[in-house]
Amino acid sequence: MTAQPTRDTALDLDAADPLAAWRDEFVIPDPSVVYLDGNSLGRTPRRTIARLQQVLEHEWAGDLIRSWSHWIDKPQRVGDLLAPLIGALAGEVVVHDSTTVNLFQLVHGAAALRPDRAVLAIDEHDFPSDRYVVDGIAAATARSVRHGFDHLDDVAVIVRSVVDYRTAEVVDVATETARAHAAGALVVWDLSHAAGVLAIDLHAAGAQLAVGCTYKFLNGGPGSPAFTYVASDVQATIGQPIWGWFSQRDQFAMGPVYEPRDDIARMLIGTPSILALTGAECGISLSAEAGIHAIAAKSTALTGFAIELCDRFGLAFCTPRDPARRGGHVSVVHPDARTLAAALVERNVIPDFREPDVVRLGMSPLTTRFVDVYDGIATLAELIEVVEVVAATSG
Amino acid sequence: MTAQPTRDTALDLDAADPLAAWRDEFVIPDPSVVYLDGNSLGRTPRRTIARLQQVLEHEWAGDLIRSWSHWIDKPQRVGDLLAPLIGALAGEVVVHDSTTVNLFQLVHGAAALRPDRAVLAIDEHDFPSDRYVVDGIAAATARSVRHGFDHLDDVAVIVRSVVDYRTAEVVDVATETARAHAAGALVVWDLSHAAGVLAIDLHAAGAQLAVGCTYKFLNGGPGSPAFTYVASDVQATIGQPIWGWFSQRDQFAMGPVYEPRDDIARMLIGTPSILALTGAECGISLSAEAGIHAIAAKSTALTGFAIELCDRFGLAFCTPRDPARRGGHVSVVHPDARTLAAALVERNVIPDFREPDVVRLGMSPLTTRFVDVYDGIATLAELIEVVEVVAATSG
Repeated sequence: MTAQPTRDTALDLDAADPLAAWRDEFVIPDPSVVYLDGNSLGRTPRRTIARLQQVLEHEWAGDLIRSWSHWIDKPQRVGDLLAPLIGALAGEVVVHDSTTVNLFQLVHGAAALRPDRAVLAIDEHDFPSDRYVVDGIAAATARSVRHGFDHLDDVAVIVRSVVDYRTAEVVDVATETARAHAAGALVVWDLSHAAGVLAIDLHAAGAQLAVGCTYKFLNGGPGSPAFTYVASDVQATIGQPIWGWFSQRDQFAMGPVYEPRDDIARMLIGTPSILALTGAECGISLSAEAGIHAIAAKSTALTGFAIELCDRFGLAFCTPRDPARRGGHVSVVHPDARTLAAALVERNVIPDFREPDVVRLGMSPLTTRFVDVYDGIATLAELIEVVEVVAATSG
Repeated sequence: MTAQPTRDTALDLDAADPLAAWRDEFVIPDPSVVYLDGNSLGRTPRRTIARLQQVLEHEWAGDLIRSWSHWIDKPQRVGDLLAPLIGALAGEVVVHDSTTVNLFQLVHGAAALRPDRAVLAIDEHDFPSDRYVVDGIAAATARSVRHGFDHLDDVAVIVRSVVDYRTAEVVDVATETARAHAAGALVVWDLSHAAGVLAIDLHAAGAQLAVGCTYKFLNGGPGSPAFTYVASDVQATIGQPIWGWFSQRDQFAMGPVYEPRDDIARMLIGTPSILALTGAECGISLSAEAGIHAIAAKSTALTGFAIELCDRFGLAFCTPRDPARRGGHVSVVHPDARTLAAALVERNVIPDFREPDVVRLGMSPLTTRFVDVYDGIATLAELIEVVEVVAATSG
C-alpha cells in the first residue's frame, strides 16, 4: 500500500511533470488562485493576446477588407489544427458557430439520412443544450425522443456526450458506435468535455459525426467557436438545414441556386467572427504542440491524484475510479454542494457547482498543477468538516 | 446650377463636417489609403483594441469563470445599445450568432405563425445567404418560394433587405410592412446594409421582425455577431427552431424540459463569443454616441457628393438619385468592373466588386471623408478613361 498523499507529494509530482512548463504560456495574474474550473473556461494563452493585437492592428485596421482573402478559410485551417487532437484527418473538421448550432445541423443532417426512422435517442441526463436541441428537432419534424440506448433498431440518430459533464464518466466511443451502426443508427458525438483532455481517436472508433467546444480544455476563450467533425466518407452525402453563403460552392458568384460544397466547408453557415476564431486557433495550437497523448497522460495523473486525496480526506465522489472510464474532472458529491462551492470561491479556490449536489473539480493539463489539486481538495475537506460540525451541533 | 465639384469642394465639405472628429476614434495606420469598403468591413475603433485588452487580461485571465456573471446577458446589453439606432426599444434586440443563423431562426419562427400558408417570398436578386436560407427552409418544410412581392395573399413570410447590397436602393419599410400585414403576411427585414447608416425607425414603420449585421457600418469587426429584432408584442408568440440553453428560462437549473424565456433572450442559442461581442459592443457604441440622425445626414451628403462626381466624370451608376431611396453606397456600373476594382486597389483605393459589372463605393459616415470620395471617384474615372482608350484602339 502506498503512503497517504501529502502536499509534498503534490510538489514532487509537479517537479516531475513533463508538461509543467506549458503553464508559462498562460496569463496567470494571481498565482494564489487555485483554478479548478478550466473545464468550464480554460485560461488565457499569452499568445492569444499577442496574436489578437496583430489581427486587430495589422489584419483588420491595416489590410482592411483585403484580409478576407486569407480569413475566408480560417474555419477550415483551425479545424485542421484541431483534427489530430481528436483523431480526425485534415479536411474533416471546421471550427465555427456554437456547439448548439453545430449539433442542430448535424442531427438534422443525420436524421435526413434515415428517413424511415422516427426516433432520436439521447441520455436523459445529458447536457441540457443537447437535450433541448434534440427535443426541438423532434417537435419540428414529427419524430420522437427516446431516453436511453437499449433499443436502437428504430433509432435514426443518437446524440451522446463522450464525457458526462457531471460525473466525468467516459463512454466507449468505439463500442457504442459499432453497436449503433450495427442497428442502423447514426451517432453524433458531443466531445465538449473530451476534446483537448482525452486521447479521443474518432477514426479508430469508426465515429462519423461529432461536435465539441473549444473554450474548455482547448483554452479558446469565453464562448469561442465550436467544431464540427464529419468523416470524409460521409461528407458527400450529409446535408444541413441552414443554407448559408459560406457553404456555397462558388461563394462570391452569388448565383441563383444553393449548391453546397462537397467538402467539410459544407457545414459552414454565415460569416465567422475572426476575433473569436483567432482565440480558438491560439488555444488549440497550444494543445496541438503539447500533444494529446502527453496531455491525456497528465489528465489521468491529475484526476487520479484527486481521487487519492478524496479517499484520504473521506470525500464522496461520483467520478469513476477506473482511469479508462474517467474524463478530466472529479466530482465531489455533498448535500451542501452549493454552499461549499461558494465558500471555496471565498477561499480563492474556484470549482464549479452543478445541480443538485456536485462540486466539480476540473483539471486542465496545461495549466493545473498537482499542488492546485492538493490545495483545492484540502480546502474543500476543511469546509466540509466545518459544515458537518455545524450540522451536528444544530441538529 | 451649381459649380462642378472639385477636390477643393471636398476639402471644404470635410472642414464643415460636424462628424469629422469621429474619424480620430479609429485606427488608421495609412491615411493615404482611400477606403471605400466600410460597408463590407468597417474600420477598427481604437476603443475596441483597448477594451479587448481589458477583457483578455482582467475579465478572462483575471476573473476567469466568475466573469460569466456579467457576460451572461451581454447579448441583451449590446442589443439595448443598438436598439435606438434602428428605432427599436430596449429589450427588443439581441446581438448574437450570424445574420444567416438569425434569419433562419426568424423565418422558421414566423412561418410557424402562418401554418395555413405555404409560400415564402423573397426578391430573386436579394443577398445570396438570404435566398439560400429561404430555399433551405422551403425545401425542409414543403413550402414554396416566390420571387417578388406582387401577390401576398398566400404568403406566410416575406424576407426582404431594406437596402439592396448592389444598387443601394432603399425599400419603404413602413409602406411594405403595412401592405404585407394587410395581406396577412409577416415580414422579416434584413437591415445588414441599413443599420448604422440610415435612420431606420422599425417601430414607426410597424416592423415586427428583423435581422442585420454589425461588421459593416457598425464597425464591429470581421464577422462580428449579428442582431435579431423582435417587437415586444410578438415576443410571447414567436418560437424558434434551435432550442439551446441560452434561451432557457432557468438556464442553470438544467431542467428536463425546454421552456423558452418570454423576452427577447428566447432568440439566443448557445454560448456566445465574448471577444466577438466585445468588438460589436465597441463599434455599436461609437454610432450610438454620434447619433443615427447625424450619421444618416452625413451618409446622404457623402453619397450625394459621389453622385455629383459620377455626373461630372460621366460615370454610369445604378444607385437611385433620390436621397430618400438611397443607402450608404454608390454603385458604378461598367462592363470591366472587375478589372477596374483590381486596378483601384493597386492605386490604394479600396472599393468592392460585385458580379457582374458593379464597382461598389461604400461610404461610412464615421470614417469616410469627402476627399476620400473625391479621390476614389477621380481615380476610377481616370482608370475608366484608360480602359476605354485601350478598348477603342484594340477594337
